[in-house]
This record gives sequence, structure tokens and C-alpha cells, in this order.
Amino acid sequence: MKELDFLKIINNTLDVNSYLGNDCAYLEDLGIFVTHDTLVQDVHFTMYTTSPYMLGRKSVAVNLSDLAASLSIPKYITVSLSLPNTVEGNFVSELYKGINDICNEYGVAVIGGDITASDKIVISVCAIGKKSSSYLSQRNNANKDDYIVIAGTSGSSAAGLFALQNFLYADEKLIQAQINPLPKIREAEYISKFVDRNITAMDTSDGLIDALYKIAFNSKRSVEIDINKVPIDNELLIFSKQNNLDYKEFVKWGGEDYSLVLCIPSEIFDKIDDNMFKLIGSVNNKDNSPSVTVIDGNVKEVISEKIFMNKTYNHFKGILC
Amino acid sequence: MKELDFLKIINNTLDVNSYLGNDCAYLEDLGIFVTHDTLVQDVHFTMYTTSPYMLGRKSVAVNLSDLAASLSIPKYITVSLSLPNTVEGNFVSELYKGINDICNEYGVAVIGGDITASDKIVISVCAIGKKSSSYLSQRNNANKDDYIVIAGTSGSSAAGLFALQNFLYADEKLIQAQINPLPKIREAEYISKFVDRNITAMDTSDGLIDALYKIAFNSKRSVEIDINKVPIDNELLIFSKQNNLDYKEFVKWGGEDYSLVLCIPSEIFDKIDDNMFKLIGSVNNKDNSPSVTVIDGNVKEVISEKIFMNKTYNHFKGILC
Repeated sequence: MKELDFLKIINNTLDVNSYLGNDCAYLEDLGIFVTHDTLVQDVHFTMYTTSPYMLGRKSVAVNLSDLAASLSIPKYITVSLSLPNTVEGNFVSELYKGINDICNEYGVAVIGGDITASDKIVISVCAIGKKSSSYLSQRNNANKDDYIVIAGTSGSSAAGLFALQNFLYADEKLIQAQINPLPKIREAEYISKFVDRNITAMDTSDGLIDALYKIAFNSKRSVEIDINKVPIDNELLIFSKQNNLDYKEFVKWGGEDYSLVLCIPSEIFDKIDDNMFKLIGSVNNKDNSPSVTVIDGNVKEVISEKIFMNKTYNHFKGILC
Repeated sequence: MKELDFLKIINNTLDVNSYLGNDCAYLEDLGIFVTHDTLVQDVHFTMYTTSPYMLGRKSVAVNLSDLAASLSIPKYITVSLSLPNTVEGNFVSELYKGINDICNEYGVAVIGGDITASDKIVISVCAIGKKSSSYLSQRNNANKDDYIVIAGTSGSSAAGLFALQNFLYADEKLIQAQINPLPKIREAEYISKFVDRNITAMDTSDGLIDALYKIAFNSKRSVEIDINKVPIDNELLIFSKQNNLDYKEFVKWGGEDYSLVLCIPSEIFDKIDDNMFKLIGSVNNKDNSPSVTVIDGNVKEVISEKIFMNKTYNHFKGILC
């Protein structure tokens, strides 16, 4: 079974499921956003391709990125750590140095958690953010003629992982994109000042097309982007050329860049810093079979539900398969 | 290394560690309590001795119990689930039925989480509770002459686990104590109405002596209890007799009863329902070498730091060793 099938079962089993379906849950009575993501050794990471310090950073970054997608300001995290008996004290201190550093960089406090035994390393982080504006960012708020904008690049993280897994040379920029992703907290805080209605935002944790398809599906609107307008690192072009790979596959389907994709009214785009946010596409009419259209020069590729389900980044297969 | 050694390293690594050290973190700006505990297959449970439904219940119960110890009212949980590829859909639906049922019983909403792959089943729950009174319950608030009271019994859960692990017959009450513990939410809500100053409370997740020692250590006061006043189930006596075991070992050191131990001024005890809370001991003077004294008729057993460290319930050894 795939993650999406399990999520369907969970939705059908719970009496109250109105909180589910976004990157973060919004608790109106408390004015906070909550998210909870887990990294599992040999599924989300391997100790051959990262360090305890970077692992600590990334386990926090992936959760802060979800808060960024909700346009909320991160405040607190809890960390539940499961470790094999063989792990030494300096592994834990390095991991927590990473956690401590990234928390300091974004003004976040570690408030608790637990530590237990396990066969593999499992790091589960729950993050709490405060509301930064009167408006919400949710997956179902994309409207006709909204501009689709992105903060951050696409494809570098997946290329970095590909290099690490296949013992290929890659520029440090690609490796860092994979092992030390930076959540777009400041970009989210910046744009929240311009937002004057509920909007849609997602991070690209599971890839750019994944984010776009989920926005399309939840907003019941098709969307289209120009693949040549998506910001990429030059190092991705070089790496792809050197290894005879199609860089656009990394850009479209590669996960873990933790860039921020938003659908916003064009008036907002006119006001914001267009160095920080790049215009890559737009939202179409209501559509009962929402799709993502990728324009590449004269070629239009329409990604339907079926194509999406076959190609999306699937943690259940594992990044290492 | 033991859990306590790792916790020392974490405390020393973090720049901000003032939130750590209690069962829950209290976030004053939000008026909420947060706790985060993880259950790991073959460490905290085995699928030979529980069902997916009961596992779902227990994974929530252990976190609600921490909120009870903080005298807070549980409101929300997130669930991060890691599952082997071989797990079927009905495992997930049964697990979530258990989660859904216990949440309904205590007025809690499941607000999110994630689902990932792993070798073993790992269930990580983060729970959020609202403040129920103007006063806090923390481990370091035990004062001289406070009464030590307990809601719930001791020893049954560990006896139930012993029976399951050794294929011994045990009354269903002991088995249920192990696989379906009930957090003392209502008892916490009840007593919070009588509390007129900061107090100390802990659950007995890691055993009665463990809770008492941690209270003594954090409050820098020795405490004493009368072992014969600790409420126990009659089924524990029968099981221990039938199997030639010392039931007092279960009562003192057995974990996972999730009973609620409190240190409260005697005036509060005079006002509360003494069917719900049983008086088992008292708090002594300040003490630089805090200990727990267990009185059993004419015998006084003093549990020092050294004895405690050797005997306390250690998840790092695992319940299955």
C-alpha cells in the first residue's frame, strides 16, 4: 500500500478529520499551527551519506518547512529520539548540536520529547508555530488566475542524493541541498505581510509536481507551469550534463528541496520582491479532473491523477530503493 | 548508555533547556502543555501480546497520562506512524479505531501527523493540553509535610506483562492493565479544582519508586511511603501467590500502571474524595542526598541514588530482555 492509501483509511476511521489534509494543523482556539514529521534511518536518510550534526538540523528543518508553508512563525519543537543500543554519547551530542543550531537560527526553543531504544535511528519532531497574519494558507485556496510563485530552487536536493547514492562527484551545493536543507521561514514571514486573503502554499518536500498536484487536487483546479521558469542551481545543469541525465526530471519529480510554492493573486505578486519569489505559472478554472500542465517550449505535458500516482515520490518505496 | 545519561548530554548541549525535566513542557505564552512520547515495536510492545486496536489506544494513553500529571486538560494529538511495508490496510484501520475511541472518551481531536516506512512499527504521539488551573504541577514543587497520594493501583501492569511474556495464566484485569492502561485524566481534572498553589505530580509510567525518586531528586527532599498503603488489585496478589512471586516487587518497581502520584498540602487532602486518592506517604525536610524510604511494617528500606540507578525500569534494556 502507498502512503496515500493509508491516509484515506485514516481519514475514514477518524470521527473528526477536519484538521487533516494540510502540512500543518491550525488550532483556531490557540492561534497556533502544529506539524509532526518523522525521519527514519534507511528510509529518509542513511548514516553513510550524512552526519549526526546534519541529521539533527534536517530533522528540524523539514518540520519548520511545513510551518513556513502555513505562513506561521516557528516557536517550539519537541524531539522524540529512538536509538539503537550501540549509539554512543557523542552521536547524541552532535545530533543535538545540529538541533540546537538550527533552532537558534530561527528563534525556536526545544521544549521536550523523549528518548527510547530501537533497531534503527528514528527522529520524530513536532513543531508549533504562531499565526503570523489574519489569513490562512491552505491547500484548497487556489483561485482562478492566481499566480504560482516559488521561493527556492528545484532539483538540487534529489541530484545531491543521486550523487551520494551512486558515488558520483557533485558540487557541494547539491550535497548541501540534500543534507542541510534550509526551510523558507524568512520568505514565509516576508510574504505574510502582503497577504490580504486566504491563500495556498506548500513546500516541495515531496517534489515540485507533487506540491502542484496536491494544490490542484485540493483546490479542484488545474494548474500550469513553465518548466523553464523554475529557478534551478547551475550546479544541477553541470551535474546532469556530466552524468548524461535529464535535469528536468530532477526539477519536476525530485523531492526534499523544501522550496516554497504559493498561489497568490497577481496584485500581491506586483508588490513583493521578485528576486525572492519567481513567477512560474498560473491557476485555471474549476476542474473535476484537476491536472498539472508542464509547458516546455512548444511541448505541453499534462500530468493527470494516474500519471501523478505512478510517479510521485513515494516514501514507502524508500529513497534507497 | 542509559536514558538518563543521554538526557544529561541533551541538557548540556541545548542553549535553552529550561523547558526540560518535567513530563510535559509548559508554554506560558500559549497557556498549553505539550508532551511527546514514542512506542517502538519490540521495545515498548510486541504484536504477540497486543492487538493493533489496543496499541492505538495505548499510544495515546501514555501521552494523555503525561498531561494528567501536569493537571492539564488534553485537547489535541498528532500521530506519526512508521510501518513496515508488509503491514496491511486493516492494521492501520484497527490502530486508528483505537486512537479514535480513546480520543473520543477524553474529548481529544487527532489533528495531524505523518506516515512513513520503517523496519519496525513506531508510533510517535505529540499531545497538547490546556491549562486547567492557575497553578502548575512540576516535579520540583514537593514541600515539607506534603502528603503523598495516589490515584490508581500499582503493579498490575508489570504483572500482566510478566504473564504475557512467560505464557502464564493471569486474570484479564492484569492483562488489561498492561495493554489498555487508562490515563488519570478525570482524576487530574478533579483535583485541579482543589489546588491553591503549585504542586508536584507524576504518573507511574516507569514505576512507583521511579516517580517518587524523581520527585525527591527534583524537589531535593527525601520522601517516604508505606508500601502497605499503596492500592493494589486483588488479582495481583492471586497471580503472585500462584507463581511464587513477591507482589511488592511489582508494586515498587513495575512500570506502566499510569497511576497518578501527587505531593499535596494536607489541607487539600482533607477536602478531596479519599476513594479516588489514597494517602501513601509524606515529604520530608530538604536533603542534599534525596532518597525514597519504603516502610513495610517494622522494616525500613532506604532507596538511595545508587540503588535507584541500578533498579529503575530501563527502556534501553527493553521490556523484552
